Amino acid sequence: MAKVLSGAGLRGQVAGKTALSTVGKSGSGLTYRGYDVKELAEHCEFEEVAYLILKGKLPNGAELQDYKARLKSMRGLPQALKDVLERIPASAHPMDVLRTGCSMLGNLETETDFAQQQDVTDRLLATMPSMICYWYRFSHDGVRIDVETDNDSIGGHFLQMLHGKAPRELHEKVMHVSLILYAEHEFNASTFTARVCASTLSDMHSCITGAIGSLRGPLHGGANEAAMAMIENFTSPEHAEQEMMGMLERKEKIMGFGHAIYSESDPRNEIIKGWSEKLAQDVGDTVLYPVSVRCEEVMWREKKLFCNADFFHASAYNFMGIPTPLFTPIFVMSRLTGWAAHVMEQRADNRIIRPSAEYTGEELRPVPPIAERA
Amino acid sequence: MAKVLSGAGLRGQVAGKTALSTVGKSGSGLTYRGYDVKELAEHCEFEEVAYLILKGKLPNGAELQDYKARLKSMRGLPQALKDVLERIPASAHPMDVLRTGCSMLGNLETETDFAQQQDVTDRLLATMPSMICYWYRFSHDGVRIDVETDNDSIGGHFLQMLHGKAPRELHEKVMHVSLILYAEHEFNASTFTARVCASTLSDMHSCITGAIGSLRGPLHGGANEAAMAMIENFTSPEHAEQEMMGMLERKEKIMGFGHAIYSESDPRNEIIKGWSEKLAQDVGDTVLYPVSVRCEEVMWREKKLFCNADFFHASAYNFMGIPTPLFTPIFVMSRLTGWAAHVMEQRADNRIIRPSAEYTGEELRPVPPIAERA
Ligand SMILES: CC(C)(COP(=O)(O)OP(=O)(O)OC[C@H]1O[C@@H](n2cnc3c(N)ncnc32)[C@H](O)[C@@H]1OP(=O)(O)O)[C@@H](O)C(=O)NCCC(=O)NCCS
Ligand SMILES: CC(C)(COP(=O)(O)OP(=O)(O)OC[C@H]1O[C@@H](n2cnc3c(N)ncnc32)[C@H](O)[C@@H]1OP(=O)(O)O)[C@@H](O)C(=O)NCCC(=O)NCCS
Repeated sequence: MAKVLSGAGLRGQVAGKTALSTVGKSGSGLTYRGYDVKELAEHCEFEEVAYLILKGKLPNGAELQDYKARLKSMRGLPQALKDVLERIPASAHPMDVLRTGCSMLGNLETETDFAQQQDVTDRLLATMPSMICYWYRFSHDGVRIDVETDNDSIGGHFLQMLHGKAPRELHEKVMHVSLILYAEHEFNASTFTARVCASTLSDMHSCITGAIGSLRGPLHGGANEAAMAMIENFTSPEHAEQEMMGMLERKEKIMGFGHAIYSESDPRNEIIKGWSEKLAQDVGDTVLYPVSVRCEEVMWREKKLFCNADFFHASAYNFMGIPTPLFTPIFVMSRLTGWAAHVMEQRADNRIIRPSAEYTGEELRPVPPIAERA
Repeated sequence: MAKVLSGAGLRGQVAGKTALSTVGKSGSGLTYRGYDVKELAEHCEFEEVAYLILKGKLPNGAELQDYKARLKSMRGLPQALKDVLERIPASAHPMDVLRTGCSMLGNLETETDFAQQQDVTDRLLATMPSMICYWYRFSHDGVRIDVETDNDSIGGHFLQMLHGKAPRELHEKVMHVSLILYAEHEFNASTFTARVCASTLSDMHSCITGAIGSLRGPLHGGANEAAMAMIENFTSPEHAEQEMMGMLERKEKIMGFGHAIYSESDPRNEIIKGWSEKLAQDVGDTVLYPVSVRCEEVMWREKKLFCNADFFHASAYNFMGIPTPLFTPIFVMSRLTGWAAHVMEQRADNRIIRPSAEYTGEELRPVPPIAERA
C-alpha cells in the first residue's frame, strides 16, 4: 500500500525506529501499537488511545477511569498564562496561540528532568483545550471562561468550553473518533520536528512547541481549514465540480487530497466520512456533504487523488458548529499524544539528528575588501 | 575532513540542497557562500555576514550602512510582548524566554505572505537582543530598560542593554567575531528543524521558534553553558585534569567537545580561542583560560576529541561579564541568520520533509473489549 518514493523530502528514507505506529503497511492501513485504527475508532474513547500510545498498553476499566480523572484534574491555567493569552489579538492565527501558550507553560512549569516527561505530557493534554478556548472566548466574546468543566473527556470538555453548554452525545462521540484518528502518524513532518528537537536532549515543551509550528503549515495540519475554506464556497455539487475542474486545469493544489505515504486511500477517510454523513443528516444539511462527496469523486476521476484524513473532517467539524480557525488546534489536542510518545522514544535511544546537505553554492573565494565590492 | 558516517541520526545522509555553507569540506573547514569563515571573522562585521547569508552577496559600504540603520530602527518591542516578558519568572530558562518571545511576536506581526520573509527576519534580528535583555533586566533587576540604544551593532547593542553602559571596543569586536562564527552551519539540528517546519509551508515565526527549541538542547547550543558550568568548578589546570580524567573514566559526555561532522578539529575553535586568550590577558585572568587549555589538551590526549565552537566561547563570554544563562541566547541572535536563510531556501524549492521509520513494534492484533484487559 505504501508508495515507493525517493529523492527530495527524505521520502522513503528511514530516519529512525518506532514501535508506535505503521502507516501504509500491507494488510492494514494504519495501526497504533499493533491495533488497527478502525477498530480503535469504533470501540474506544480518545483517552484510552492516548493511554495506549503513551504507555504501551490499552488500559483496563480502572486504569482508564484513573487516567481520565487525572487529566480532568489538570485543566487549570496559571494566571501568568491567562495574562499572556489575553494579550493575543482576536486576529491571531489560533495555531500561533497554542504555540505561544505551550511555550509559555514551559517557562512556568519547566521540565527539568526527563523523569517528568509523562507528567508534562498529561498536563499539556489537559490544558491545550483550555488554552485555545480561553483565548478564543476572551478575544472574540470578551469573557473569561472557567476552564474546568464537569465533562470528563477532552473532546467533550472542549465543546463545552467553546459553546458554553454540555455537548450532545453524538458530538462527543465524533470528537472521540476524530481525536483518535489524528492521534499518531509515524514520522510525519510535525512528529519528525519533535524528534529532531528531542535529539538535542531539549525539553518537552520545546519539542511540542516546534511540532505545533510545523503542523500549522497548509501542506500538513492546516489542510483541514484550507479544505473548509474551499468547500464553503461551493453552492452545489455541480458548482463544486465546475470549480474543481478549473483549479485542476490551473494546476492548483487542492487541500485535503493526496498523501506522502498512502498511495490508494487514507484509511482514516472512510471513518470520518461516515461520521460526517451522520452529522449531515443530523443537521439536515443538503449542500456541504454532497459537495464534499462530489469533490472526492472529481479528484479520483481526474487525478486518482484520494481524500486524506483532513477532507471530511472539514464538514464534520462544521456540522458540530466549530469555527474553521479552530480545526487545526483540535488536531494539536490529539496529535500531542503521538508527538510526546515519539519524544520519549527518541530519548530512550538517542543520537542527535544531523543530516548532510548537497552543496550547490559558490566555490571557495577570497573576501574582497569592502571598498572594492560592487 | 568530513567523517564518513552512517546509521542513526541521519548522519551522512543527504536531506536536501543548500548554497549557504559547507562544513568539513576539503581545503577549508567552514565556508559561508564560498567565503572562509576565518577570513570573514577577521575582516567583517556581523551585519555584513548576516547580509551575505541572507541576500547572497557581501554588501558594499553603502549597503552595509543602510542595512545596519534599518536593523537599528527595528529594535522596539510592542507593549503586548513586553507584558508577556514581564510575566516570565527570573527562574525561567532564557532559551524558553526567546522561544516564547519569538512565538508571541508571531501573533502580533504574523507573516501572512512569504513576500514578507526578509522583513520578518530583519525584525527578528533586531528584536532578539531586545527581548532577552528586557526580560533579563526586568526579572533580575526590576528595571524596564530602553531597548533602543545608540549603538549600531547587534552585539554592541546587546552588551549595552545588558550592562547599562557603552561596551568597550574590544568587547564589541569579540561580539562581531562570535556572532559571525555561530551564524550558519549547514544542516545542524536546529537548522534542520527550521527546514522541516518550512517544508509544511508554515510561517517564519514557527520555523524560528522551533529552531530555538532545538538549539536549547545540551547536545547542541546548550553546550556552551554546560562547558562553563564545568570549567568554573576547576580551580587550577591540575585540578581540571584530575576531574576530567574522572569524568572520562565514568564515561561522562564532556560538553564543548566533539562534533557530528568535523573529524579532526572545528575551524571555529582556533579563532574564538585566540580571542579568549586576548580577553584573559585583558582581565588579568590566571585560572579560567589556563584551565580551558588544559581541558583541551586532556581531551585530545585521552580521546582524540577536540574543542568545538562552544568550548572557548564559554571563557570568552565570561571574561566579558556575560551571565552564563545568556550564552545560548547569543547563539540565537546569530544563528537566526542561518535559520532564516535556510527557510527561504527550502521555500524556493520545496517538498514536504517526511521520512519513514523502521517499525519495531507489535504485530497486528485485535482490540480486546475493555472488560477483558489485564
Ligand atoms: C500531502 C502532500 C503534501 C504529499 O506530498 P508529496 O508526497 O510530496 O506528494 P507529491 O507532491 O509528490 O504528489 C505527487 C503528484 O500529485 C500532485 N498532487 C499531490 N497532492 C495534490 C493535491 N492535493 N492537489 C493537486 N495535486 C496534487 C502533485 O502536484 C504531484 O504532481 P506532479 O508529479 O505532477 O508534480 C500533497 O499531497 C499535498 O500537498 N496535499 C495537499 C495538502 C494536504 O491535504 N495535506 C494534508 C496531508 S494529511
Ligand atoms: C557533538 C556531538 C553531539 C556529536 O555527536 P555524534 O555525531 O553522534 O558523535 P558520536 O556520539 O558518534 O561520537 C563518537 C564517540 O565519541 C564519544 N564522544 C563524542 N563526543 C564526546 C564528548 N563530548 N565527551 C565524551 N565522549 C564523546 C561518543 O560517546 C562516541 O563514543 P562511542 O563510539 O564509544 O559511543 C557529540 O560529540 C557530543 O555530544 N558532544 C558534546 C556536546 C556538544 O559539545 N555539543 C555542541 C556541538 S557544536
